[in-house]
Amino acid sequence: MKKIGIGIVGLGNIGSRLYKEIISKKKDIGLKTSTNITIAAISARNINKKRSFKVRRNIFFKNPLDITKNPKVNIVIELIGLSDGISKKIVERALKNKKHVITANKALISKHGDYLASIAEKNKVNLEFEAAVGGGIPVLRTIKDGLATNKINKIVGILNGTSNYILSEMQKTKNSFKNVLNKAQQLGFAETKPKFDLDGTDVLAKIRILSSLSFNNKISKNNCLMNGIENIELKDIDMAEKLDLRIKLLGITEIINNKLFERVHPCLIKKDNYIANIDGVMNAVILEANPVGESVLQGEGAGPGPTSSALMSDLLSILRGNIKYPFGIPFSKRKKVSSYDQNQYSNSLYLRFEVKDKPGVLSQITKQLANYNISIDRLIQIPDHKRKRASIVIITHKAKEINSSKCLKSLKSNKNVLKSPTLIRLL
Amino acid sequence: MKKIGIGIVGLGNIGSRLYKEIISKKKDIGLKTSTNITIAAISARNINKKRSFKVRRNIFFKNPLDITKNPKVNIVIELIGLSDGISKKIVERALKNKKHVITANKALISKHGDYLASIAEKNKVNLEFEAAVGGGIPVLRTIKDGLATNKINKIVGILNGTSNYILSEMQKTKNSFKNVLNKAQQLGFAETKPKFDLDGTDVLAKIRILSSLSFNNKISKNNCLMNGIENIELKDIDMAEKLDLRIKLLGITEIINNKLFERVHPCLIKKDNYIANIDGVMNAVILEANPVGESVLQGEGAGPGPTSSALMSDLLSILRGNIKYPFGIPFSKRKKVSSYDQNQYSNSLYLRFEVKDKPGVLSQITKQLANYNISIDRLIQIPDHKRKRASIVIITHKAKEINSSKCLKSLKSNKNVLKSPTLIRLL
Repeated sequence: MKKIGIGIVGLGNIGSRLYKEIISKKKDIGLKTSTNITIAAISARNINKKRSFKVRRNIFFKNPLDITKNPKVNIVIELIGLSDGISKKIVERALKNKKHVITANKALISKHGDYLASIAEKNKVNLEFEAAVGGGIPVLRTIKDGLATNKINKIVGILNGTSNYILSEMQKTKNSFKNVLNKAQQLGFAETKPKFDLDGTDVLAKIRILSSLSFNNKISKNNCLMNGIENIELKDIDMAEKLDLRIKLLGITEIINNKLFERVHPCLIKKDNYIANIDGVMNAVILEANPVGESVLQGEGAGPGPTSSALMSDLLSILRGNIKYPFGIPFSKRKKVSSYDQNQYSNSLYLRFEVKDKPGVLSQITKQLANYNISIDRLIQIPDHKRKRASIVIITHKAKEINSSKCLKSLKSNKNVLKSPTLIRLL
Repeated sequence: MKKIGIGIVGLGNIGSRLYKEIISKKKDIGLKTSTNITIAAISARNINKKRSFKVRRNIFFKNPLDITKNPKVNIVIELIGLSDGISKKIVERALKNKKHVITANKALISKHGDYLASIAEKNKVNLEFEAAVGGGIPVLRTIKDGLATNKINKIVGILNGTSNYILSEMQKTKNSFKNVLNKAQQLGFAETKPKFDLDGTDVLAKIRILSSLSFNNKISKNNCLMNGIENIELKDIDMAEKLDLRIKLLGITEIINNKLFERVHPCLIKKDNYIANIDGVMNAVILEANPVGESVLQGEGAGPGPTSSALMSDLLSILRGNIKYPFGIPFSKRKKVSSYDQNQYSNSLYLRFEVKDKPGVLSQITKQLANYNISIDRLIQIPDHKRKRASIVIITHKAKEINSSKCLKSLKSNKNVLKSPTLIRLL
């Protein structure tokens, strides 16, 4: 039985759960990997914080960087979660000191993953980050191992539990975005500062990690089509329902003509479609690959349980002595990939305009759509007589991004259009 | 680059597709595993059979056992598919000669997996069988690696593409079992001798492999509750539809009070339930585990593409030098597990009786149900005046297996009951 020391940096919800998982599964891990593991070092902001277990002072380090050079530590688990700063330093130093690293940090990996992978490879240690994407869904491992040698063509995912909870809860309870967000925060499904979960940033980080694993490219730094769910109102949810559709925030990545097209935006999806029925905090990933065909993975996307499941799978992979390239193939073989011109992306669109209820407004809008070559498939006008306003919902035929963005920009300056129009793409 | 020789035994649809996959992915495999692979030996029943590639005579072996001792071969891939005989001999000898073995053979693994695993462990080589369960779904790898250290409590799966295709096609086309089976055979979704796919044998083999991986027990040889779909008629499909239900053949395994309960039978499932919507030849597996929660994997369950995807994932696992216990933990640590008394299993039941349309029949049936403590939730009688017959469909409250089986047995001797009643359990 080989002795292995583990260092955990960060003892919040995730770190604490992981700590207990490691202790309680020690015997099982021994059976599966022929190793004898101990938690050799921990670091947390506050040693005295109330926890459900006692932090042994003899293994506590105030400065987490001390853990990265501790000879008793073979594996460092980084759970602070910053995209730079101390998180980056810990991972960097640990790898340079030939410690394996496990992290749940998608912000760090999507920003510095290439650099950190190159250090890991140079030092022949593992850099594992299963928990960074899809919570408990072992999607990275599935791409690297379970679907190894498949040519992946496209990935579509629901990758953010917070926004998925909000959208499905709005639909179920007919409560406003704001009320549902409050409820989500009370339940622990949304952070107090939920911006990155709602505006697509979190999903984009995950999509970039998925792309680089699936298409063997360096992590893209390109500008990306990214919209969040902050502008979705109950009106949109209701209208979707009437049209037998559901609104979901999707992350999508694919290769089109050898170019990478990554995007994150809400989508209207037919309600009998599989992905339209992934509700609450669940995540799901659909992979199109050859020769396997379509593969679907679904599971809980966040929280201490699922996240520690993913961290433990990383731990076992290392303990089994399975040295691997962090992104499947050597750093030097991963190519830069140019990005698909998102202006050329074309889609049917759902557009909602809030307008003054007076003659000629509808004709101004439809004329402008025609000017930009956007043709209308369906139009629904809902009056609000009291406030002398109306909502105009338009479903268009396929329209190019460049046309729709120019068109909406031009309509912003129209005084009869009361607020920035809402745009949702149809899947 | 380490040189690795592969021997393929069996060049049918699967073997041929795999052969081409290996050739075309050679470079990619080199990048991912730092190995230089060649197909060093092949064996097939008929060297002259028309194939889409040329079989090189210098690597062809008439006797597949010669491959198992060929020094140029490091990995043997067995694709004959018998539960015993030559398949077993090939795997056994290859392992004893310290060759890694990959097989898609669920019949062999579910019958002799324990024995073969012990030989593999003794000789420090891998025995991999991802393709034996779930086709292209990497479910075994997910249990062993992606969900490693999770405590799995229950698995529910649609694990046979043939029967799932037949049930969903009957529902869609309103065609009889016989007609749909014929169509499935024409399309290559059913074998000419489909017995094991239809009667549950195939699913049971897969469930037994899943159990032993999930619960760390030796492969169970116990009697098991197993019903197939051969007795399901269009009448049942139609009735399910009226009740907003769907019929699916499920394999289920779980631990109840430390006892293993494996079962395979058709189930009636609410039509908005996820698993009720897995149609055609798709497979799906739902795992309940701690701490990850519920995990769902879905993908194509059969055919050369998905199967070779699974075989390739086995191949890469070996090429990465990842020596593992075939069932996750050492052979000696895997315990025998006693089986749950299936007589105690209780379920709501769907019962269909074909009866003579004459007074008193219904009362005979309901009286007998009452005798066996089976209470009725719903009853629908559909007359067939022309033939002076009727179908009686009964949905019961929860009833114990022992009671329902005794009751149905007793009703068989009733001359007014024209054929063996159809029983489908409700999920």
